[in-house]
Formats: sequence, C-alpha cells, structure tokens
Amino acid sequence: MFKDDSYMLHTDLYQINMVKTYFDKGIHNRRAIFEAYFRLMPFENGYAVFAGLERIIDYIENLRFTDSDIEYLKSLGYEDEFLDYLKKFHFTGTIRAFREGDICFNNEPLIQVDAPLAECQLIETAILNIINFQTLIATKASRIRELVPNDQLMEFGTRRAQEYDAAIWGARAAIIGGFDGTSNVRAAKKFGLTPTGTHAHALVQTFGDDYSAFKAYADTHKNCVFLVDTFDTLKSGVPTAIKVAKEYGDKINFVGIRLDSGDIAYLSKKARKMLDEAGFTDAKIVVSNDLDEYTIQSLLTQGAKVDSYGIGTKLITAYDQPALGAVYKLCAIEDEDGHLVDRMKISSNVEKLTNPGKKEVYRIINNDTKKSEGDYITRVGEEIDHSSPLFMFDPVYPVKRKYVKNYTAVKKLYDIFIDGKLVYESPSIEKMNQLRIASLDELWEENRRLLNPQIYPVDLSLQLWEDRQSLIEEIAERDIDE
Amino acid sequence: MFKDDSYMLHTDLYQINMVKTYFDKGIHNRRAIFEAYFRLMPFENGYAVFAGLERIIDYIENLRFTDSDIEYLKSLGYEDEFLDYLKKFHFTGTIRAFREGDICFNNEPLIQVDAPLAECQLIETAILNIINFQTLIATKASRIRELVPNDQLMEFGTRRAQEYDAAIWGARAAIIGGFDGTSNVRAAKKFGLTPTGTHAHALVQTFGDDYSAFKAYADTHKNCVFLVDTFDTLKSGVPTAIKVAKEYGDKINFVGIRLDSGDIAYLSKKARKMLDEAGFTDAKIVVSNDLDEYTIQSLLTQGAKVDSYGIGTKLITAYDQPALGAVYKLCAIEDEDGHLVDRMKISSNVEKLTNPGKKEVYRIINNDTKKSEGDYITRVGEEIDHSSPLFMFDPVYPVKRKYVKNYTAVKKLYDIFIDGKLVYESPSIEKMNQLRIASLDELWEENRRLLNPQIYPVDLSLQLWEDRQSLIEEIAERDIDE
Repeated sequence: MFKDDSYMLHTDLYQINMVKTYFDKGIHNRRAIFEAYFRLMPFENGYAVFAGLERIIDYIENLRFTDSDIEYLKSLGYEDEFLDYLKKFHFTGTIRAFREGDICFNNEPLIQVDAPLAECQLIETAILNIINFQTLIATKASRIRELVPNDQLMEFGTRRAQEYDAAIWGARAAIIGGFDGTSNVRAAKKFGLTPTGTHAHALVQTFGDDYSAFKAYADTHKNCVFLVDTFDTLKSGVPTAIKVAKEYGDKINFVGIRLDSGDIAYLSKKARKMLDEAGFTDAKIVVSNDLDEYTIQSLLTQGAKVDSYGIGTKLITAYDQPALGAVYKLCAIEDEDGHLVDRMKISSNVEKLTNPGKKEVYRIINNDTKKSEGDYITRVGEEIDHSSPLFMFDPVYPVKRKYVKNYTAVKKLYDIFIDGKLVYESPSIEKMNQLRIASLDELWEENRRLLNPQIYPVDLSLQLWEDRQSLIEEIAERDIDE
Repeated sequence: MFKDDSYMLHTDLYQINMVKTYFDKGIHNRRAIFEAYFRLMPFENGYAVFAGLERIIDYIENLRFTDSDIEYLKSLGYEDEFLDYLKKFHFTGTIRAFREGDICFNNEPLIQVDAPLAECQLIETAILNIINFQTLIATKASRIRELVPNDQLMEFGTRRAQEYDAAIWGARAAIIGGFDGTSNVRAAKKFGLTPTGTHAHALVQTFGDDYSAFKAYADTHKNCVFLVDTFDTLKSGVPTAIKVAKEYGDKINFVGIRLDSGDIAYLSKKARKMLDEAGFTDAKIVVSNDLDEYTIQSLLTQGAKVDSYGIGTKLITAYDQPALGAVYKLCAIEDEDGHLVDRMKISSNVEKLTNPGKKEVYRIINNDTKKSEGDYITRVGEEIDHSSPLFMFDPVYPVKRKYVKNYTAVKKLYDIFIDGKLVYESPSIEKMNQLRIASLDELWEENRRLLNPQIYPVDLSLQLWEDRQSLIEEIAERDIDE
C-alpha cells in the first residue's frame, strides 16, 4: 500500500493518460484555456451561490507529486522520462474565478484556467469535485435563508453527510449561504463558525425521565434548550421544561425548547401557548426533523410558531438534487504557430454546445433601478461601448432581445492566481455571506422566489455569438469535406 | 483560527454538552450500550451491504483531544476540570460490528458500542457519518453489479462526489459492492484498487479531430479505448477508431471504444456491428453518461451491446436516495447500583420504537437449502435451544410466524475492540467483495431483485420481544402515575 500523502492524484486516471500523450507529443506546455460552468440551475432555483474557492486555492498551492505518488505511478507502468516531468510539476498558470458568496448562473464561466495544457488538465477533477458540492450546498442554504430572513438557521447534518469532508465543507457552505451556525464542532473550530446544540434524546433516556434530565442539564449549563419529545411532547416534555425553567429561575438562561418529531405545526402552536401562559414569552421554539425549504414553507403557511430551525439531511446532502453537474471545458488552445485558437464541443443537443474562447463575465446593473439586467459574456479584451445602449439577446433564442441604457458593467471574475502566484486573499466567511446578500439585492424578487423563478438572462456579446456561429459552420463544413 | 489537526471534534456540539453534564454529575463512566442501525432499506432494496468499518477503526484508534481541540473548547467557555478530563480521554470500550461486505438489514444492530457513557456519546456522530455514506454506496454498487454479473463496472464519479472524502471512500465502497475499478487515482493508490480510464473529449478537442487525437493516443499508450462521441459517433468516431486500430495493428492493444452521449442503446448496436464487420469482434464497448441501475436495465432490455459501464454521479452520490438515515440509540445503561438496565425510546410511531438491551444478531441458515430463513435478534447471553424448532415471528406483525428446523445460527457481530484494544484485522477489499457474494448467495433470488423484493425477515427472540413489551407497559404506566 502507498501513503495517502497528497491530493495530486485526486484526479481521474484519464487526466494522467492525456497528460502523458501531451508530454510525449511535446505539446504539454501549450497555452490552453479551460472554463468551469454548470448547464442547469440547481433545484430549478433562479440563482446559485458560488462556493469552494478557498479549498481550490489551498489545493493549487500544494499541488506537487510526492515521492509516493511517483512510486505509485511507476508501479502502474509510466516511464521514467514522464515521471521526471511530473516530479517537477507545479501550477504556473493564471486562474480567475467568481468570489465565494457571489451569485452566479448557468452557462457562465465560474472558474477560468489559463495555463499550460497539462496543468489545466490535471486540476480539472478536483476543481469540479470541490465547486460542485460547495456551490450546491451554499445555494440550497440560501434558498432556505430567503424563506425565513430573520429566524435562526442551524446546520445539523454531519451524521447524514456523505463522509467527513462533506460534513465540514458543507457546514461552511451553509454559512456562506446564510446559515447562522453548525452543530459540527470541528467545522466551527476550523472555519471560525458558531457551534450550536444542547442535548439529544440520549440524555433523557440516560436519566430516565424528562424532569431528571432537564434538571441535570440545568445544573451543568447556563444556556438551556430542552429537547421535549422523548416521551410525550405536550404531556411531559413542554410542561417539564417550564417547570424546570421556573424552578431554576435566573440560575439558567432558559433559551427555549426543541421539537424533533411529531406534527411540528400543531405542536409548535400548542407549545408556544404553554410557554406564553407560563410567562416565557421570550423562550424560543427550535425545530428539527428532516426539514427543508418545502417543509419550512408548509410550516409558515400553517402559522407554526418556530424561531429556530435545525436542518440536517436535506441540506447537507442536497437531498432533492445531490449533484450540481458543473463541467470544465477547453475553450481555446495555442496552435503550432503560437496563436491561441478557439475550441468548442459540438453536440447534437444545442444546450450542450460550449462557448469558444477566453471570456469575461459582466453583471449589467441598471443605474436607475440598481437591479441587474442580466449577465453579459464577452471575449476577453472586447470593449464595452458605453456611448450607445447595450444590445442584449438570448444566445439560444435570439429573438429575446433588449437594449439597455444607463448601466454599469461589473466584472465578476477576479484574479486568483497570476502566473502561478496567488494574488487573492479570501475574505472571512461572514464577508462571503454579506456578498451573497448584496449580490441577491441586485436581483428582482421574481428571480429569487422558491418556485418557478423568472429566468435570469445570461447573454453573449454579439462578437462572441458570431464567433461561435462561424466555428459551428467551420466544423460542419469540415465534416462535409471528409 | 485553530488548526484542523484531529477528528475528535468531528462530532455534534450536543455530544460535548451531554458529556459535560454526565461528567459534572459523575456518571460519565457508567457502562452504556448503544447500537447503530437503520430503519428503512435504502433504495427499497431487499438487502444492504455493510461498509465503513475500517474507517471507524482508524477513527477510534486515533481518538484524542489535541492541544488545539482543548484550546478551542476553552475558548467556548468549558471549565478546566472538564477539559482536564477530556485531555485524558481515549476509547476504553468494546465494539462489535458487522464485517464490511456482509449483507445486513434494517432494524438490526450493525455496530454495538459497550463503553463508558461519555465514550459512547462522543463517537456517535462520526460513526454515523461514516457508515451512513459507505453502506449506502456499497449497496447501490451491489444493486448495479447484480444486474450485470459479468460486465466490467467502473466507478467514474469523483467530479460529482460530495467533496474529497466522498470520492475516495465512495470509490472504495463501490469496489466492496462489486465494482471492478475506479477512475480516482488517489483512491486506487490509497486502497490498492484498480485505476481505470483513457482519455476525455479534451484530447480530441486539443488535437482538433478524432483521427489526430486517436493517433496521438495510440502513439503514446499501449492499451487504447477511444472516446468516439466528440464530433459525430457513427460518422466520425467509430470509423476513425477502426481506421486507427487497423493502421496500428499489433503496435497497440485496441481495447475498444467509449460512448459518452447520445442514444446509447442505438449507438452501441450500430457500433458493435461496425466493429465486428471490421474484424474487431473482441473490441469492447464502454459506455458512460448518467447511468444507474435503471438506465442499465433499460439498456439490457433493448439489447444494447455494452461490455463495460462507467458509472458516475448516480452511484457516487446515491442520487435517488443520498442518505441512509442510520441512527445510534441507547439500549441499556448501568444504574446507581451497578446493574445494567434496559432503555428504549418510545414513539407514537411504532416503527420508531427501539429494541432494548444488548443484542446478538444471528443469520438462520437452513441446512437443507443453504438459504437464510431470516435474521434472528436475541439478548446477548440468551441461548438458542437447538433441541427444538426455532420459533420466528415478525415483531411488528406477530401473526407472521414460522418454525424452523435443521438450521445453523450464524453470529453476525464480530469483536472489533475489546476494552479499548483493537482485536480485529480488516481483510482486503477483495475479500470484502467475496464476503458480499457469499452472503448474497444465502438469500433467495426474490430478496435480491431490483424492484419490489421480497421482504427479508428480521425477527426478535421471544424473550427480547417480551422484554420490550414489558418495558413499553412500564413506561406507559409511569405516564399514568404522573
């Protein structure tokens, strides 16, 4: 067995095999542009929340083949000359990306890698592995946050997460997406998040009844949230919580109660009444039990009395759509003569056509409304002519078109690495959440609603669109010639 | 920020808070029994494949609060006396578990922890995090393997996995579940698996056309699987693969072609015909593109000509049910007088009742048919009387009952740790897969089918059932007294 001492081989074997071909053919250092994007909005949401960049930065910075990686590849039969090249491998290229917490959409580049071909290829798998998950969870969290702007939201999913990393990076993504805290102590420690949680049914079972358990907890903790559903929520749990809160008075901070089973809408209303009648009008009702945006919406509709939500399985696994499906495609490559030439993938499925060339993403903010008119993708270097209105049209249905006047075009891709050097400093996770809020504020309500949101325009510049059309024709003609 | 240098805090905050209560009340060292199990069969399958134990062993063996863990908890306000206790914390208990690869069912203990209360509590979250994911993926993989017993199955999911750990532990679980290889090189290196993969569309895009790309690959690799769908599968991809295979002859090993888009059933039949007519009857057809057991079943029904499947997203995320939902419940605890007393969780939902006491799991193998009559759960120490037929009945519907003669009762829980000492050596992953095959062989076909399998009996001994009934009545009477 070999030591698991690097993430360099956290990639698909075919990447190594392609790099070997490039190396043997002497084209591994040709400049290439790859871009990562997703084709469909997760959860049919109107927007997504980009996340995962900090993990990618760490990955890129530490990207080396260790001795054991080389030994392992040697055992698979790769030749020494190729292995000698890999030994010296490190990332020397340029990466631009959306910032974490920023709002993003389908069919626009979220990460752009401009680097020697071999480097582009070797980092594909890990980059997708990271952004696919973290962006998914941040988006799911934001959907939930939008429903309950002022209530407390806690990420409770570790036990149901898809292994360790999903638990901790998912907790972080949930905070970027607007959650307040996580039950995972390691995630809280690692990322500086707020850890949250009091006790489980096991405490009550250990002491044998609600009263003994709540008293034991109150004896040993200042802040108390009592879990009231171990035996009977309304007959035993809630009355006992009230009884203990009264007995202990100022000795504890009776934060409230937690409901983890049964009919939450009904029980929360009954419990609220009991708490209020006992004078505990400030006591919070925390609920948990397979919640997601749909159950929360249903609770809200029913007038449930909930102050705080603990969200587990459905958030941490993105249960209703557990994969984002971002891809990473070649857009341009240097030819024999050193010219960068466009590349695109042709598909019989028009939605799967890629956009050629190295691109820039602008958000077009209307200066009057302060709302966004859409995202606008151009070739890099293409100038936006502010002297005339901006012509925006749908690349799939070009009849959907408009002219925008009095706007500001805001660049969405930030320099992260330039020629292998890290030039970006990740802000705090708090700042990422603030960016999410500010960026969402530029959308219309109609783009943000839970169900059937208005589709946000992601348009191409006329030049990019025309370049794409000519490339399609060029490839089609070549097929006829053959 | 604190260093992320241990998995000790990879737990929910409430575990720490409960342990603090136990510690302050002086009951943290009372003996307790917790058992992990799941309530519902994943994917409505007839069986599950247990996985995750090796990861749990590593976790338990290295379970210590590091200095930074203690500092972090101090920053949260925990007192020195409690922290001094945590500093000395290590696992001293006994763990029994199913072996990886063994077939298991709902409502039976998969992992049993017999340890001081505080230790039981602190390890709950990580144990569930591990087995919930790995058991889910091994089960999904086994469902796919059962459909195509002789074809090659490759795990291709890293880019869509829920972060790094899911990719590599999921790859391992897929092999336990019957897969042949994985595209993840790090997983292959770490676990000694077979890495697999040749090239992607990017290679073809880089060289600009199928012919140049396939030739470049053939120049630099002995084993060649050509990806034929970058431009046009039947007009360009397949004919070009054949052309290159003919040109290179014995210089390469033309393994076959890969289809990654389009109508796989149609294309595979057409491609098979073209390959056969060109004399490449041994060339394999590899397919990939959002496959799972349902699409594979559909391909089989249509007579698709496929030799090898690359399965990504749907397997690695267990897309149709991305969480297993295993729980970990207190079954017994030592009282003040040192007696171990039964505990169970009462619920208005009869399926959520737990079974009290420390239990044993037997598989009842009929000596005539060599098939299993069901699993039979007893109290630990309860003797099975082989002199008379075994009475087996459904704990929820006791009218479903039978007497079994001439059987062998095979214990399913193995000693893993005894008094904190590891006493179990994990077999190779190959052996785990062999155990899966042998264990499945004890089930009837009807338990193994993809859709609507016969429900496998998981029965309780009469003594266990009666103990449970009296405990339910005892708790109910206490409620009346109150």
